Amino acid sequence: MAQLRIALAQVNPTVGDLEGNADLLVEWTRRAAEAGAHLVAFPEMMLTGYPVEDLALRSSFVEASQRALAGVARRLAEEGLGDLPVVTGYLDRRPVSLARQGLPAGSPLDAAAWLHRGEILVRSAKHHLPNYGVFDEYRIFVRGDTLPVVRVHGVDVATVICEDLWQDGGPVSVTSTADAGLLLAINASPYERNKDDVRLRLCADRAREAGCALAYVNLVGGQDELVFDGDSVIVGADGALLARAPQFVEHLLLADLDLPPASLEPVTGPVNALDGTTISIDHRVVTEETLPAYEPRPHYAAPPLDDPAEVYGALVLGTRDYVRKNGFRSVLLGLSGGIDSALVATIAADAIGPEDVHVLLLPSRYSTEGSITDAEELVKRQGLNSRIVPIRGMVDAFEAELDLHGLAAENLQARIRANIWMGLSNEFGHLVLTGGNKSELATGYSTLYGDSAGGFGPIKDLTKTMVWTLSRWRNAQVGSDLPFLHPFEEEPIPEEIIVKEPSAELRPDQRDRDTLPSYDVLDPLLVDYVERDMGRAALVAAGHDPALVERVIRLVDLAEYKRRQYPPGPKITPKNFGRDRRLPITNRWRERTPHEPA
Amino acid sequence: MAQLRIALAQVNPTVGDLEGNADLLVEWTRRAAEAGAHLVAFPEMMLTGYPVEDLALRSSFVEASQRALAGVARRLAEEGLGDLPVVTGYLDRRPVSLARQGLPAGSPLDAAAWLHRGEILVRSAKHHLPNYGVFDEYRIFVRGDTLPVVRVHGVDVATVICEDLWQDGGPVSVTSTADAGLLLAINASPYERNKDDVRLRLCADRAREAGCALAYVNLVGGQDELVFDGDSVIVGADGALLARAPQFVEHLLLADLDLPPASLEPVTGPVNALDGTTISIDHRVVTEETLPAYEPRPHYAAPPLDDPAEVYGALVLGTRDYVRKNGFRSVLLGLSGGIDSALVATIAADAIGPEDVHVLLLPSRYSTEGSITDAEELVKRQGLNSRIVPIRGMVDAFEAELDLHGLAAENLQARIRANIWMGLSNEFGHLVLTGGNKSELATGYSTLYGDSAGGFGPIKDLTKTMVWTLSRWRNAQVGSDLPFLHPFEEEPIPEEIIVKEPSAELRPDQRDRDTLPSYDVLDPLLVDYVERDMGRAALVAAGHDPALVERVIRLVDLAEYKRRQYPPGPKITPKNFGRDRRLPITNRWRERTPHEPA
Repeated sequence: MAQLRIALAQVNPTVGDLEGNADLLVEWTRRAAEAGAHLVAFPEMMLTGYPVEDLALRSSFVEASQRALAGVARRLAEEGLGDLPVVTGYLDRRPVSLARQGLPAGSPLDAAAWLHRGEILVRSAKHHLPNYGVFDEYRIFVRGDTLPVVRVHGVDVATVICEDLWQDGGPVSVTSTADAGLLLAINASPYERNKDDVRLRLCADRAREAGCALAYVNLVGGQDELVFDGDSVIVGADGALLARAPQFVEHLLLADLDLPPASLEPVTGPVNALDGTTISIDHRVVTEETLPAYEPRPHYAAPPLDDPAEVYGALVLGTRDYVRKNGFRSVLLGLSGGIDSALVATIAADAIGPEDVHVLLLPSRYSTEGSITDAEELVKRQGLNSRIVPIRGMVDAFEAELDLHGLAAENLQARIRANIWMGLSNEFGHLVLTGGNKSELATGYSTLYGDSAGGFGPIKDLTKTMVWTLSRWRNAQVGSDLPFLHPFEEEPIPEEIIVKEPSAELRPDQRDRDTLPSYDVLDPLLVDYVERDMGRAALVAAGHDPALVERVIRLVDLAEYKRRQYPPGPKITPKNFGRDRRLPITNRWRERTPHEPA
Repeated sequence: MAQLRIALAQVNPTVGDLEGNADLLVEWTRRAAEAGAHLVAFPEMMLTGYPVEDLALRSSFVEASQRALAGVARRLAEEGLGDLPVVTGYLDRRPVSLARQGLPAGSPLDAAAWLHRGEILVRSAKHHLPNYGVFDEYRIFVRGDTLPVVRVHGVDVATVICEDLWQDGGPVSVTSTADAGLLLAINASPYERNKDDVRLRLCADRAREAGCALAYVNLVGGQDELVFDGDSVIVGADGALLARAPQFVEHLLLADLDLPPASLEPVTGPVNALDGTTISIDHRVVTEETLPAYEPRPHYAAPPLDDPAEVYGALVLGTRDYVRKNGFRSVLLGLSGGIDSALVATIAADAIGPEDVHVLLLPSRYSTEGSITDAEELVKRQGLNSRIVPIRGMVDAFEAELDLHGLAAENLQARIRANIWMGLSNEFGHLVLTGGNKSELATGYSTLYGDSAGGFGPIKDLTKTMVWTLSRWRNAQVGSDLPFLHPFEEEPIPEEIIVKEPSAELRPDQRDRDTLPSYDVLDPLLVDYVERDMGRAALVAAGHDPALVERVIRLVDLAEYKRRQYPPGPKITPKNFGRDRRLPITNRWRERTPHEPA
């Protein structure tokens, strides 16, 4: 067997920040070199960030990415790092554009390159393009049709990109034909609840199929609604887990692997890829000779997080990166005394530190005494910046001119509060966070331009049930060493806030249960209708109460009209009302009939 | 030659309204039968409406569409219309689902069916799926691989669907092999400025390629941001225009065609489609015998609209259908005395009638005397409903608690106005229209949750230059018989409003030109940067002032962050900041560097 120390650089780039990402690549290559690695790999599209969406169709951006790649290759050599082979993802395009109706302008490629001694040794591009869920890659990329196989210290290393692992046939199948000793997959695979288990099984299956060990490096970081969790892994040819990086933090995963040495005569040329296409093996040599034997390091495998820890980690990282990558240093939110804004404040404090979290207490004539004291207790425990602004005078000024009733009067108060948030945001430059949860947003229990106003909604993909679960979980973490938690010395969320009955406090003695079903029956139904796209008949067959099914379908379908204007927030499920659930706004097909005005 | 009277039903369905659309199909089939037609064709996806977006992935919706098709076929026969062959678009799916990672769940089809004597005679599906611009069809459809050719009164009629015309190879190429006498294309082709000319040339080219006459039937109507303009056409085998329906109205286009009779032995079976695929010709017979000779009717060709008429027609139809199809009967907007809200009010009055347009005059301490009197004059000329609500007391109430300066203080006023609009909208059920134009929106000269609040933005895709052009054009139409205009007896927009210098009136003596470049230089630059995606170097090479290029790129890139929450409005250009310009929100690549907080 041949030895190889490989380094997987699980890093956090920013979309469009070509210079900053290039700096990151040089810095982490240096770390890998200092750790004695023989090969370092960066994630898919690391040099541009991912996903670039329609930026891929701008020729000025594609050219900037090409220049950045050539530049960083030269810089690595200039800084004495040229001998360490580097694999990285970047944005490229076909040299000869496939100009045809229906193909993306300029034929962009989701590309990978091997860099060595100041040069670009070999380039390739993603073969299988995902075009479902959050992905729209047929829109912006054309397909790659080569498999690079590079001999490093006598081991043939094949490289593929993300979706190439998820679909049958294509580069993984050709890897087996190429008789590679290691399959290196570079990825930008967004987090979803429990997806880490799916990924690990996939890697094991593909390793067995390719007949060699598999190293999987993933992005980490937040990008709009997406959160990349890292969780880079290495598995053996038998599918057994060898090494694993932690989730939600940058990490250099190092592993000493024993790999089969390459046969002297490499396989090259076109191969039937078993998916209706042909892929050419592009074989290159960096070093023929295997390494002299050395003492391997022990492998590291980060312990997996339990479910609430994993979700909470995704929310903290998604919030932190949305704030920081958009150039903000501080956030502002309304603290009502209820559980939703309490959890958002806590996530924000974990994400950017309590000293940069500004909360507003905006009592009205309907606010209970407890709301203010509970909110003040949370502020004290967490050390947040707070300010009280009573809204009564503003409500009175509107009511002097307008005679509003019912929902219109309730919404007025929510919008006055939003106007105060936005005024102070404009004055001081804080990003406004919103506190809506998925149960409320799905059923329309929210005010457009009121409580839904703001730039980012940290808990928009949590059911109310999960809001309670995570609040209790967070309180139980005092003393924990999880890297994404602020070291509060006491429970950050007062128990009174967790146990009180939910209320919007927009009219006397209002309670959520006056308007909504109880959350223990509502939330499972929302999951089935919204996330699983089950129709009326299927919902009833699954055991949901038929009358409740009618009522909830009606609420959810009507809320769609408003929901399109909601701000982004971290995704933790396949469907969180974001851009991955694209439905017409004007639409009379509902599970119910007939349509009524929203 | 064989004669055939064909009817193209240019109708306006609503997405998801399966029952209403089926009624429309029966009603217009009756009209065609009464006019003696031998074949009637409805547009692409007419039974479901178009585009259905992710509804195609819901199995309950696909099954409802299949039931609706079978039901309407039976109903046509029951109502005595079964002998007239009907071609219509609908949503179907492959009988055997192609369950594979990366393919849409359930294998939905953008389908066409021939209905005859209560039965579904033959089904097919769109072969070329558009996946660019406003289209995402790889996400939701799988491809069809048959070409139906149906013999009607001795003429072989081939049917294809929309994009099948726009791409080379595929069904049009097979139509020639099939030796068809008529190519019938059913379409849902959205309006863009000047696209009608492109479509007519395309139809002429494809007719010559197929070697037969071509009948092209298009949807008409608004659907969210899209406007379908109709403009159905029939061209001869030589590409010459024979008949043309008007734009922006429903129309039954009838034409008596002289077509080559079919050879007795039809071409059937698989054919190389010259696009890397194989298409099977699916030949059916309704009637073998050609018709006895009859006196043909003269052909009708609607005169083309000039450019401002066409754009204005698109805005009126888009606005009317957004209001009506979402179940609203009335609209509400703020009337500032400026040109933008004046044009929006006029479009609204043309769209739904002045009696259902409610305007609010909301003067502040910075409003000029002229603003109120000009707005009142417009209200009087158009017969709108109006109400004056001074906002001074509300501004004072906020300022008593908050000390806001500069932009924060300006935005406060805009948001107080939006709160009044939304309060009255919630109280009375009016849809709020917004008045932002494309020049303002692109440069961020607009307040989030302020003047940008509302459900629909009729002029969001018009540059300020076009706002002036259309206002003058509309005033010149007094006495016109264009079907999409209200018969005002005097110029609907007072001249004072058109000639006054643009101002937001949010601080003393404010003028747009204090903040923005003059519109005659700004607008052409916006068109090049936003619509044509030209980069910095290309903009300068095109003759734009380099300093202005820097400034405008910076404004536009920063405004992106806010713009994602804007409401829809009719699209009249390829890029209007809607969903067809998908860029990451968090994104440090700008034509300029470095990034600054939005």
